[in-house]
Order: sequence, then structure tokens, then C-alpha cells
Amino acid sequence: MKRLIGICLFFFALLPSVAGAEGDAGKDYVGLVSPQMDTHRSRWFYFASACRPFGMVSLSPDTDTEHSWGSGYLYGSRYIRCFSHIHNWQMSGVAVMPTVGEFKGNRGMDAYRSAYTHDGEIVKPGYHKVYLTDYDVVAELTSTTRVGFHRYTYPESDCSYLLFDTGAFLAHGPTAYSEVWKISDTEIAGWEIMERTGRRPKNCPVYFYACVSKPMKEFVPWSEGKVISNRGRLERVSGKDAGAALRFDTSDNEVVLLKVAISYVSVEQAKRNMQAELVHWDFDRVRTESFDEWNRWLSRIEVKGGTHEQRVRFYTDLWHALLGRHILSDADGKYLDMTGDFPRIRQIPLDAEGRPLYNHYNFDAWWGSHWSLNILWSMAYPQVMSGFCNTMVDMYRNGGLIPRGPSGGNYTYVMIGDPAVSFFAAAYNKGIRDYDVKAAYEGLRKNAFQGGIRDHAGYEHNPGAHSGGMKYYEERGYVPDGRPDVEGMHTTGASMTLEYAYQDWCLAQMAKALGHEGDYGLFMKRSRNYRNLWNPETGYMQPRGVDGNWLPGFDPLELTEKGGFCESNSAIYSHYVPHDMKGLIELYGGCRKYTERLNSSFEKSEPYGFFRSPETRQGNWTDYGNQPGTGMAHLFSYAGAPWLTQKWVRKVKAAYSDVSPYGGYRDDEDQGQMGALGVLMAMGLFEVDGGCAVRPTYDITSPLFDEVVIHLDDRYYKGKTFRILTRNNSAENMYIQKAFLNGKPWNCFQFYHETFAQGGELVLELGSAPNRRWGTGKLE
Amino acid sequence: MKRLIGICLFFFALLPSVAGAEGDAGKDYVGLVSPQMDTHRSRWFYFASACRPFGMVSLSPDTDTEHSWGSGYLYGSRYIRCFSHIHNWQMSGVAVMPTVGEFKGNRGMDAYRSAYTHDGEIVKPGYHKVYLTDYDVVAELTSTTRVGFHRYTYPESDCSYLLFDTGAFLAHGPTAYSEVWKISDTEIAGWEIMERTGRRPKNCPVYFYACVSKPMKEFVPWSEGKVISNRGRLERVSGKDAGAALRFDTSDNEVVLLKVAISYVSVEQAKRNMQAELVHWDFDRVRTESFDEWNRWLSRIEVKGGTHEQRVRFYTDLWHALLGRHILSDADGKYLDMTGDFPRIRQIPLDAEGRPLYNHYNFDAWWGSHWSLNILWSMAYPQVMSGFCNTMVDMYRNGGLIPRGPSGGNYTYVMIGDPAVSFFAAAYNKGIRDYDVKAAYEGLRKNAFQGGIRDHAGYEHNPGAHSGGMKYYEERGYVPDGRPDVEGMHTTGASMTLEYAYQDWCLAQMAKALGHEGDYGLFMKRSRNYRNLWNPETGYMQPRGVDGNWLPGFDPLELTEKGGFCESNSAIYSHYVPHDMKGLIELYGGCRKYTERLNSSFEKSEPYGFFRSPETRQGNWTDYGNQPGTGMAHLFSYAGAPWLTQKWVRKVKAAYSDVSPYGGYRDDEDQGQMGALGVLMAMGLFEVDGGCAVRPTYDITSPLFDEVVIHLDDRYYKGKTFRILTRNNSAENMYIQKAFLNGKPWNCFQFYHETFAQGGELVLELGSAPNRRWGTGKLE
Repeated sequence: MKRLIGICLFFFALLPSVAGAEGDAGKDYVGLVSPQMDTHRSRWFYFASACRPFGMVSLSPDTDTEHSWGSGYLYGSRYIRCFSHIHNWQMSGVAVMPTVGEFKGNRGMDAYRSAYTHDGEIVKPGYHKVYLTDYDVVAELTSTTRVGFHRYTYPESDCSYLLFDTGAFLAHGPTAYSEVWKISDTEIAGWEIMERTGRRPKNCPVYFYACVSKPMKEFVPWSEGKVISNRGRLERVSGKDAGAALRFDTSDNEVVLLKVAISYVSVEQAKRNMQAELVHWDFDRVRTESFDEWNRWLSRIEVKGGTHEQRVRFYTDLWHALLGRHILSDADGKYLDMTGDFPRIRQIPLDAEGRPLYNHYNFDAWWGSHWSLNILWSMAYPQVMSGFCNTMVDMYRNGGLIPRGPSGGNYTYVMIGDPAVSFFAAAYNKGIRDYDVKAAYEGLRKNAFQGGIRDHAGYEHNPGAHSGGMKYYEERGYVPDGRPDVEGMHTTGASMTLEYAYQDWCLAQMAKALGHEGDYGLFMKRSRNYRNLWNPETGYMQPRGVDGNWLPGFDPLELTEKGGFCESNSAIYSHYVPHDMKGLIELYGGCRKYTERLNSSFEKSEPYGFFRSPETRQGNWTDYGNQPGTGMAHLFSYAGAPWLTQKWVRKVKAAYSDVSPYGGYRDDEDQGQMGALGVLMAMGLFEVDGGCAVRPTYDITSPLFDEVVIHLDDRYYKGKTFRILTRNNSAENMYIQKAFLNGKPWNCFQFYHETFAQGGELVLELGSAPNRRWGTGKLE
Repeated sequence: MKRLIGICLFFFALLPSVAGAEGDAGKDYVGLVSPQMDTHRSRWFYFASACRPFGMVSLSPDTDTEHSWGSGYLYGSRYIRCFSHIHNWQMSGVAVMPTVGEFKGNRGMDAYRSAYTHDGEIVKPGYHKVYLTDYDVVAELTSTTRVGFHRYTYPESDCSYLLFDTGAFLAHGPTAYSEVWKISDTEIAGWEIMERTGRRPKNCPVYFYACVSKPMKEFVPWSEGKVISNRGRLERVSGKDAGAALRFDTSDNEVVLLKVAISYVSVEQAKRNMQAELVHWDFDRVRTESFDEWNRWLSRIEVKGGTHEQRVRFYTDLWHALLGRHILSDADGKYLDMTGDFPRIRQIPLDAEGRPLYNHYNFDAWWGSHWSLNILWSMAYPQVMSGFCNTMVDMYRNGGLIPRGPSGGNYTYVMIGDPAVSFFAAAYNKGIRDYDVKAAYEGLRKNAFQGGIRDHAGYEHNPGAHSGGMKYYEERGYVPDGRPDVEGMHTTGASMTLEYAYQDWCLAQMAKALGHEGDYGLFMKRSRNYRNLWNPETGYMQPRGVDGNWLPGFDPLELTEKGGFCESNSAIYSHYVPHDMKGLIELYGGCRKYTERLNSSFEKSEPYGFFRSPETRQGNWTDYGNQPGTGMAHLFSYAGAPWLTQKWVRKVKAAYSDVSPYGGYRDDEDQGQMGALGVLMAMGLFEVDGGCAVRPTYDITSPLFDEVVIHLDDRYYKGKTFRILTRNNSAENMYIQKAFLNGKPWNCFQFYHETFAQGGELVLELGSAPNRRWGTGKLE
């Protein structure tokens, strides 16, 4: 038992969340997660069962492998094509498959795939068990952070195979080249080059080192569809379409264990990752440790009360918020930097014990994360914030830009704007500052001008990118649409203008905190640029043309780019001024008018589940399926109507409460963003401004639960816990009647982060009728 | 001028021969080299014009690219297919070609090759100039150690191209994968994976970083035969058959300069190599520095007298001895180690100034080098010996074996035996000891038993190789032929037995010098194993079968493997006991009988130019075209007839005196071995036992020249020069009449290495009639 604890502590030390801040880890939070939720139309990186929090290895069965979308583990698909190790933003790799009988490895996944059954399938955070009916093989998966651990129970056969389909097409694009070789009867190694995609501009390698528990009888390489005869010669194969199988003689119910460590640096580093994390062969122990680790992470936020389904949804959302983005760096802190003219291997700084101070992460754009991950992580997982900040600062040092959504150690130019600035501003102003703040600010300031990340819109990789329209923004205070000098998609000027204005404000808040008064003034001024799109005649934010006129044919419900907005429309973006709700409300003509407009949007879209409905257009007034609309229900509080926030947050939550494989997020969960949003709405805390103010505040609404306890990380926050207690909570009793903050009556819908960080208790008395006066008091 | 000297000294410091031991470097030795000699049937690594001594870059025009043999620069071929940067043992890469007009890069070398003319062609060590008639382009090449420097003079065209055919098939095998990308308008980078060959067991990468002096107008990538349209998108390409061209607008006679640095570690290291060696654009300066460097190296041995052709042949031979084998490590000492289960990047130890203490080398087997390179390098280039010893010791540490002929940072199992032991024994016993001697001895001792390098014959890469028959050798004292457990070619037991016996003696000499008396006894005993093949009835060394009987159908002239000998026959191998000529002569029945037999061999093969004649078989009594026979003329001295050594060495030299493109070595020059042999025979010093004795000696014969001055490296040897003066030297006056060593009459055909190392003078009086008594005195 002592030995087990020792190992746990070791892993613990390597992982971002290290503090003893978890709650009752003995409670089975893992059992409350429903990993199959919404897997009927998984995106490649949506699902990973055998994965630690932020695990470099994200191992799971793949039923569909040929697209970024509608791929990975799809609940309704009938066949498992492989078990692959990387389900990440623009990354994939190392497909493994057990087969029995006739050898089909060389014929590809369409040939060697197996039917499977959901009967008896077990899917948990950290473990997957599924029966492959074609081969009579029970497959079980678990993992450490960087090592996939497989347990296959075979029938009796002298043709029991483990395929390594290193050349397989996986998700985003083909494998450009792969190599795999036998090291010994129980070891193989190899590497794959993921071909560049429209988003990830360079080919990117992944290396692996694998061990099996039983000596293979034969190493069976194949290339370009043909099995290569070996006859005792060197056992290795390479090429565009290559792979190799290990053949075993198995008795009935014989177990073959497989460990696969990966690295983006080298095979040597992959082996080191295995040596650092998994030297033994005890599958059950690793599974238990994985559950324990997930429990530690999930128990950072403990909830009581609510329905079972609400708790399942809560921990499933929370699981996604800790699952979607993945570690890129090795156990010893080495990582691949692809930002430059050529690949470089770099080293994360080490602590006194020689362990890396943080991990590097791979992640899709932060676009919209100011209403999701930034808030959640900064409250409950500040070291995760720190790790991502360090990743971005290192990329700035290496490649000259703070990234938006890096992949394979390099920039991708997915989405628009510089959402990293809200991430940093929230981190810094909440006291998460253990990274090079000066470099971070320098990089973020660079991003706010021509040549910075904002200009890299349209998935445009050229160094001189300008699809983000910063020239216009700097000159005019808005980005017009119909610009002649753009390429790609996601180049809509109106959404850029609104997001840039918010991001200017975020930068101003960081400037102020750092004492850069000149910058503060400059960016505060720019943060009012949202007004340049306000058309008082229509009462909407509207795209302007290059000639300065309103773009003709304005349609506030238009969702395509011709409407001027990015994956959304004017109806939604006309509420997108997270940093200056006072100013926005004034444009609408005051609180009453604003509240009416906003309320009408919710009422009109309620029949559509607060989800856009492109076919009927009638639901397009709100959209909780995509980032731009995910703060809307919380805006009522700023117009003096916190009770409407309480109402609509609850209604939205109810509309997004499905925990079945066929429900969930309705659209792209987006690497933990929608999960984090769900967590925040459920626990009744939010930050419309993304927590970026010099003195950050939280917005209160009514939680779903009787009790929410957030365990604070004592390396960042003085308090031990922040607790939210509700009285008389029920589905109907959604309205806050009274509140007490640390025992004192509290009539403001906000309170300061510093109060949160010191630990404390918020008590909310709920009722079925709104208390329209509650929450309207001034913040003190 | 001062700046120039500074740079020279800098390069000097990075290169193996660092001491101020050169002779009259002002003299134009470079001008005496005839690089085109014997290029009518070049082997891939035979010729490299733009190459420094042991240069990592060996850049030259390739007229033929599709084989290891009959490839590279062939004088008689009509087309230049490319200018490629690596002409090395099992290695090739980075093919560049200028073209003008219609773009043909994607269509391969058969399409874009150009006719050229020898008119006006200039070929020197360190420089090549040739006119490409199809394109009206003058191509000039020079290099630093790790950077190829190209100067192309184009006609007027807006379609002047520089092709980088990164996916081209070059020499040994296809390129498995390559990638090339634009960094800026004047920079590109890329890498290629050389597919494994039957000899080099693993794929091996080469990386390059290239700069042009003029901004390109366009980057034109191609893949699988098709040009890829770029239209401003990211400029990079990859795949099995990929490449890219730079397009320029050129005015008439416009010069475009190109610098290409390579590394086997990474593009980053390639760029570092360029930064270390070539930061400017002065082509003429690099050419001059290259000539200067070659002059410094060549002037280590200065000869006077003889005919012009003899001096040309001498310096051409010497050039080859310093050209054939190539540096593998980077300027900063990083190198690729492919010996293990996976690739590793390693670092050569650095000196106090942070410079690597030595270089790592890539080289074909040492097979037979005890009669060529070992002797020459240990006399005139001891630091080269040291560098190779260090390479081999590092490989032993990295991969567990002292290599025979490593390529791409890994073992190849070309040829047979452990010739490295004679290399080390000569080095150690001559006082070249600046490497880990303990590790070297340990590795060499391991090689002398089952599982060592000797067992890796037959090009057999399996760890449990046994084609070298060491089990038999250890048990029986010989390796039989017809063994059931062999694979591949070059598995002849009779030549193994003879070579192993010599190698045992070499190891015994090293053991004795190191005080390992037990080992000395063991290996001296084994060194007599050559006797196990002596058939007194026939008077030949004969192969035995597994049953212990003489192999039936014995034919002393049979050259194929069924004769039991490796690339030779019994007639030649029956004289292969370099370490115990006394014992061998006894087997023949004494000096007279031995001399008769040996003399008859030379007489019979004289009409065939001392070259095997497989068709008529009549010349098969000697063979100066391949290693096993290259010591034979020197053996007379050991039978009391030094005059016959003097006679036949002169006659062999005369038979191998052609310096034209259509003559030369008659067969494989073998990476400097035949060149070194020619140098030794011409300067009248040799070592039949390879210089491996505890107290090494040199064998004297009559030099071709009036004066030979060997400049000694003062880091290894106390003396400044060792000088050989002849009197009355002429073609007829080949016989030594009298000799004086350091002024004292000398009547022994040998003298000690310690005498040589202290510096001194050997005076030889020559005459047309043999002095049969000279040289028969005892060594004192």
C-alpha cells in the first residue's frame, strides 16, 4: 500500500494539479461521469476514455477515422476500426488493433475492423472495456499520462495479432511516412509523420515505443498493401503506407498486455516517458490509479443535491473541461518546437528536483473561452492556467507570437482575434503569475497590432498575414467586411471588431495592473470600438463595408459569413460587449429596453432549445451550441434584472441536460469549453467580462445544487474552500430571494475574486417567485 | 590578409590534422592531383571534387546515379544528372541542378539532365568547373568541410532554376521520404531519408540548410511527378518523390551563388554547420582556402625527383587516401548514433575551448587496410588515426561492438573479420593513444569471440549472427567451408581463418603492450591457426569442409567463393600470414623454396599487369586490384631476398602508373586504400605486419623518388621530419646497393618505428643490378 502511494505521489508531482486541494477523493466522481454522452457525433478530439487529465496519450476505440468531424468513437457506429493513442487538436496517431485468424493488417481498416457490442461495454474516465465480436477478443484500455496500456484477452489461436497500422489515415489527414521496427521479441518502436493539414501548416512527427507482455512469434511488416516476407532478416518497414503486426500463439482466454509510450521528440524520449511513468505490468493498478487521479481532479468541485442526472451532467461537463486539451511535452520536459524555420527540440525549465516546472499543451483556439475554461480553471485549477500561460509564453519566445490554438508545436490560425489575452488577463488579475509576465505582456501587446495574431485570420499562414484586418481596425476602429485583401474562411469583420474591442479592454486591464498607464489609456480607448458597429436606426451591431457604409442586405439572423459574423449572427453578437455592458445598454436605450430585447431573444428561441436553427431561422436569437452566444443569459444582471439571468440560466441548463449518447452539447463541445460552461452555469458562478478586470468579480446566479464546494489550490489562493449553499432549491425555486456572503447579507449580483480566493461561504435562499430587487445593490 | 589567416586557423582547428607539420604548403600539390584519374568507372564514393580532406560534404557532378558501382562522376558519360553533396559509404543525398527554360524538375533526372563538355572543364581537389551545354550554364563547385558552395553563371532568362531533387534515387537506394520548404526568399531547408540498403540496415536521414545569393522569384514544389500550384500558400512539400525548385530571373552571365550545409542530426545543426564554417559569400576565397587546406595535407609528404607522371600519381594516390572516408559529425561535435534500438543524438567530448576533440567518420570496412591506410596514416596523419579510433570506441560504447565498416551511424557487416584490430594495434603500438584504450581493448577482445564482429559476416544484421563461423574457429582453430549455418555472401571460411589468425596476433600485440599476459598467450597461440589450412601435399592454404577434410575440387586459381576465399584465391591467400612470415616460409620448405614460389607467381602474372584475369585465369597468381594480394611483393624481404621486393614493387608500380581517366586502380580504389598502397610503394616504406608489433618496424624498398620527406605531427612524434634520400635513382636503378640510417650504414631491410618517430634520414644508394646481400642483416 505504501508503494502504491509513493507511485501516486510521483505522478502527482508531474502533473499540473499538484496541491492537496481536492475534496473527498474517496467518493466515486468517476462513476458520475458519462463518457458516452453525445458520442453519436463525436469530433475527433471529443472522446478519449483511456486518458488522464490533459493526458498526452488519449487512447480510445475509433469507430470512424476518416474525418476531423464525425470521427473517433461514435456510439452509433457498428465497427471498431482501431484503438488509437492521440485524439487531439489536429493531431492523431499510433493505431493499434487486435485481430485473430486470417491476417488482414495489410488490407487496411475496412478489412480488419471488427463489429463490437455495447453489451458489457464499460466506459469510464481512465478505462474502456469492449468486446470485439469478429475476433472474440475482449479489449481493455487504460493509461498513464504518456503511456497507453492495453489488455487484450484472446481466444485460442496461433494467429492472434496485434496490428500497428502506422501508416493509417487518421482523422485530419494521411500519414506522410511511417517506420516501425522490432527491437526484441517483446519490444517494437516506430514513428509516424502526420501530414500537414489546412490548419496545421507543417508535417509533424509522433514517436512511439511499445512493449508486450508475451514474446511475439513473428513480426509481420507490410507496405503498400503487401505483406513483406521476412525470413529472419532485419525486421523493420517504412514508407507512405506501412505497418507491422506482432503474431502470438494464444491459448483460450489468454491475456496479452501492451504498453505504448509516445513522444513528439523521439523514440528515445517515448521510452523515457515509459520509464518515468509505467515500468510494471499491473493493468488493474494503473486503472485504479487513473480512477484515483480523475477523482482527485473532479473532486476539486464537490456538489450535493440536485438530481442524479444533474450530478452526472455536472461531472461529465467537468471531465470534458479537463480532457479536451492535451500535454505535448515529455515527462522530462523536452518538447518539439515547430514554430521556427525548422524543428527544434527544447527543454522546459526544471525545478530543484529536476522535474519540469510545467507541461506544454496542444489546444484548439481559446475563442470564447472567457465564458468557460478561463473562469473554471482560474477558480479551481489555477496551475492549469499557469501551465497554459507558460506554454504560450514559451511559444512567444520561440516563434514570436502568443498563439491562438497551437498544434504540433506550431501555430494554427484557426478562428479569429486574440482570445489568449483574456486568458492571460484573467490569470494575472486573479494572481496566477508564475510565468514570464513581462514577455507575456509584450507578446499580447504585439498581438494587438498589425502583424500580430489577430491579423492571422482565414487560416492564413503567411508571415505577412492580414486577413484579420488590423490595418483597418487601427485606422478606422472597426474591421469592414468585403475587404479585398483576405483569404480563407472566418474573416468576418464585424465579429472581429467586437472581439478586438473586448480584447483591447482585457489588455488594458493587464496594462493597468502592470502600471503601463499609457497602454491602459490606449487600449481602453480602443475597447469602445464596438460602438462603431452600432446602428442606432436598426438597434443592431451591423457589418460595415470597406466604403464605411452599412453592408447592404442586413439580416440579423443570417448565420453564414455573408452576415458579417463568425459562426453566429448579429442578433447574438449585438450583445457581445463583455467588458462594457453599461455602454452597450446605453446604446439600446437603457436597462428596460435592453432587458426587453434580450428577454425577447430568449423567449423566441426557447422553443428551439436555445440552439440556432438554420433551417427555420426562428431559433437564431440565441445559441448555446457555439461560443459567441454563451454569455447571453448572464447579461440580464447587468441591466438590473438578475432574476432573469437566474431564470434563463436555469432554462438553458434544462435544455442542455441530456446525458445520453444521443444528446449533450448539440454541437462542438470544443475541447472542454462547453463542458466548462455547463459546470459554471450549474454551480451558479460566472464572469461576463471573463474575470479580466484589474479587480475581478464573479456573477452570482442560482446553482442547481444544494451545495457546491470549490477546493482552492493553496499555492495560489489563501482560502481552503469556497462554498455555495442554497436553501429551498428545486426546479421551480430558481430565484434568489436573499443572499449571505460570509454571513453578511449580500444584495449585489457580484462579489470580488479576492473574497473567493480567501475562502468563504455564499448562502442563497431560493424561491419560486423572482425577487426583482435582489442583486441590484452596489458592489462593495 | 590577417582576416583570411584567422579564418584559416579557425578551420584548421576544427579539422583532424591540426599540427604545423605540413611541408612547403606554398608549393602547388593540388596542381599535381589528377582527380579524373580512373573516373571512367567510378564507384559512388570514389570521386568528389568539391570536398575537403575527409569532408562531410563531398560535392561533385553526377553523371550516373542509379547504382553504387559505376556511378558518381564517370568521365565517359555524356550527361550530368545533378550535383549531389554526399558520396560516401552507403550514403548519398541532396541533389542540386541548375536548369534554364522549360521546367523539368518534376520529370526527374532523365528529363532535366544536361550534356556537358570536358573542354574547359577544371577539376581539382576542392574545385570543379564545368559547362552545361543544354542550359548554357557554367557550374562551379567548392566547399568547406560541411558546406557545399555552388557558383552558377546563367544566361538571360526568367526561367532560371535551381532544382533540389530531394526525392531522387541516388546510388545505393531510393529516398524513402523527403521534405523541403522555403524559409525566406533566399533560404530553404529540408531533409531526406535514405532508404536502408542490403548493407546499411536502417533508414538514415540527412538534413540540409541552403542559402542563395539572390532572392528567388518563386518556390516551385513538386510531388510524384507533378508540379504543385502554390498561389501564395505555404511553400513546402513532402513525400516519397518530392522536390522543389527556386526560380530566378537572370540577366546574361548573371551569377547565382548557393550554399548548402548538411547534417545528419537536424536542419538546426545543418544551419549551425554553415554558421561555423561559411558565413560569407566569397566563392573565390573558399576555393583558395580549400586549395590551401589540401596543400597543407598533401605537403605532409613531399617528394622530389621521379617523373612528372610519378609525382602526379603519387599526389593523386595521396589525395584519395585523404578523400574516400567522410566526417559524420557536426562542427559542434553532435552526431547521430543509429547503433541502438532507436536513433540517438550524441555529443563528442569538447576541449577547453568548446570544440570537439575529434570527428566521427563514416567508412567502408578496414578489410586489408593494414597494408595501406593504417601504415600511411600512422606515419603522416596520426591524428586521423586517433579520430577513427575515437569513432570506433564511441560506437563500441554506444552499440556494443567495435565496427568494421560503419555507415549512417550504424554498423554495416560488409566483408569479414575484425580488421579494426590491426588499425588499433598499429595506432597503439606507434604511440597514438588519445582515446579510451581500455574500452578499445575490451571491444576488440569481444570481437575475437563468438558474438563479436567477426561473427557478423555475410552482411548479416541479426544480433545472433554466426556467418563468421567463430564457433568453429574457437573449437577447431579454423573456419570450415560449406557450413550449414551461414547466410549472405563473403562467408568463405578459409580466408576467415587466415585473417582471424593475423587479427589474433594483432590483438596479442596490443595485449602484450597493455600487460595482459594471459591474453597475449591465448591470442599468440590462436595466431598460429593459419597452419590448420596448410596442406603440405599441395603446398597451398586450402579450405576445409565441416567434416574436417580438405574441400574437394581444390583449385588455387578459383576466384569465386566456392574456392573458399574472399574476393581472392588460394594462390594469393597462401601468402597471407602477415604476422609470421618465418612460420609461413618454413611451411613452404624454407627461404629458397618460398622465394621461388613467390617469384614464379609474379612472373606468371606480370603479363597480366599483376591483376587477376578471371577470363584466362593466368593472371590470378597475384592481384594488385584487391586487398588480399597487396602485400605480396614485399614478402621476398622476409625470405632473404629484399632485392626481389625491390624489383617487383617497382614493376607493380609501373603497371599501376596510369593517371588518365581510363586507367588507375583497375578495380575498386576502396575509399583511399589503394591510394594509400600506391603512396607507400612509391615512397619505399611498408609494413607487412601492418605495424602492429609491440615494437613496430618499417620495411624498406627503393622509392620512386630522389627525396621523400615525411613531416611528423609533433603532438605524436618527437622528430620534425623523416627523410628518405636516394642516389642514382632511375627506372633501371631499382636495386638498393647500400643504405645509411641517420648516417650509419644499414644492412637490414627493416628499421624501428621509434627511429622514424624521432625523425631522421634514410639514404639509399641504388643501382641497376641487385645487391643480394643488402638488407639481409639483423635488425638491431
